[in-house]
Formats: sequence, structure tokens, C-alpha cells
Amino acid sequence: MEDCIFCKIVAGEIPCYKVAENNNYLAFLDVNPLTKGHVLVVPKKHARWVHDVENFGEYWVFAKEVEKKLEAALQPTWTQYFTQGVVPHAHIHIIPRYTPVESSEAYPKKPIEKLSTEEMLRLAERIAQS
Amino acid sequence: MEDCIFCKIVAGEIPCYKVAENNNYLAFLDVNPLTKGHVLVVPKKHARWVHDVENFGEYWVFAKEVEKKLEAALQPTWTQYFTQGVVPHAHIHIIPRYTPVESSEAYPKKPIEKLSTEEMLRLAERIAQS
Repeated sequence: MEDCIFCKIVAGEIPCYKVAENNNYLAFLDVNPLTKGHVLVVPKKHARWVHDVENFGEYWVFAKEVEKKLEAALQPTWTQYFTQGVVPHAHIHIIPRYTPVESSEAYPKKPIEKLSTEEMLRLAERIAQS
Repeated sequence: MEDCIFCKIVAGEIPCYKVAENNNYLAFLDVNPLTKGHVLVVPKKHARWVHDVENFGEYWVFAKEVEKKLEAALQPTWTQYFTQGVVPHAHIHIIPRYTPVESSEAYPKKPIEKLSTEEMLRLAERIAQS
């Protein structure tokens, strides 16, 4: 969709720190990460909300494959799926968490300090290869 | 699993405000709702985390069916999927939201005032029939 930032990322018009991709979905690092390894999973075909995505189950199965990569690369204590929708192109947040679930806040309160471009590239590569 | 509260709910040993069910999954009102109509969707077969659930895609497709019921019954502005895992039996939170997504906090900060048993029963029934 015109003027949709995630459609532009899918089209390669805006770069992203890609961690996984198949014919229908793309996963990349959130540039304002709530934790290290915070990833967004988007459908390549535009949809407004996560629940509007065609083949909804398949979309989540792809997100789970990404989550397994995050677990292998970063050994979080647990991982969280989260949807909101401020950017009007469907996206699933996958947030690796590094504190025990029993003592973790339900949702990280604020973004972590930004990594450098170099560090983001290395992190994306490490997850992609896991 | 013994001593698992959600297994006991699945087995009917602990009552719940049921909104939907099929052979493999059960959806019921959260008794400490973050918003009106906050629902938990659990697999009937015990699994620790959402990503451990067999037929992961099918599990999310069921959650989406529940979300459609919530939309029909309550006309929220948008709905949110959320996973955490303090109760150690997989559960997807579906949280109807009643403020525009652009001005909503990412995650509701605290539970709403509890409804009476009568009101919870009526709400569950209304969602179930939608």
C-alpha cells in the first residue's frame, strides 16, 4: 500500500535488519527495541490488523519459527508475543525476555538504549543464522 | 497436569466463564480483566508455553474465532493478542481495547473493577452467542 512504511520495507525501498523471510512473511529487528532481539513479523501482502492476515495460522507458525531462532541465538528466559497496531500494517512483536516470568513486568516499560548500526547488523545476522 | 489450575478448569473441576470451546481449545473470561471482555484461550492438553502447543497455527486460528466473537459482542475499537506465562499452562490473552490505537497505552496498566458473578455470566453468554 502506498505510503505504508512496512510495505516499503517489504519492497526493499526502505532497508531493514532482516532475520527471516519466506514467500509470504518477513521478520526484522525493531529499530526501537524493548529488549535485545525484539523482532517484528509482517505479512508481505498488506493487511491492516494481524487478524486480517490471510492464512492466519501459517502467519503465526512463521512467527514461531522466528521465535525459535531468537531462543537459539539469545537464550532468553522466555519470549513474548504481542500485537498492537499503531503502524497500520499487521505486525506481530516477538520480545525476548531476560528476567524470570514470575518477576517480569507484563510488558517492558520502555525501549532499551539503541544499538549502533554495526551492532544491529551483527545481531540480525546472528539470529538469522540460528 | 496435577495442580495446574487451567487443567482443572479444562477438566471442569474449577468453574469458568466459558465463551467458546472445541475439541482442543477452551476460551473463558479472565477473572482479573484488564478490560471488559478480556479472554484467555488455552489448549486442553497441557503445555507450558504458548509456543509448546501442538498444532500452533490451529490454536491461533481458534483464538481468532474468539476475537471475532468479542468484536461482534462488544464492538471494541481494536483487539490485542498478548502472551506472558505466569500461570504455567499456555494461554493467549485477547484484550478488547476501547480507545483509538494511536492514543492507547501499549498494554493496559491495571485491571478494571471486577464485575459481579451475575454480570460475568451474562457477559460470557453474550460473547458465546455472538
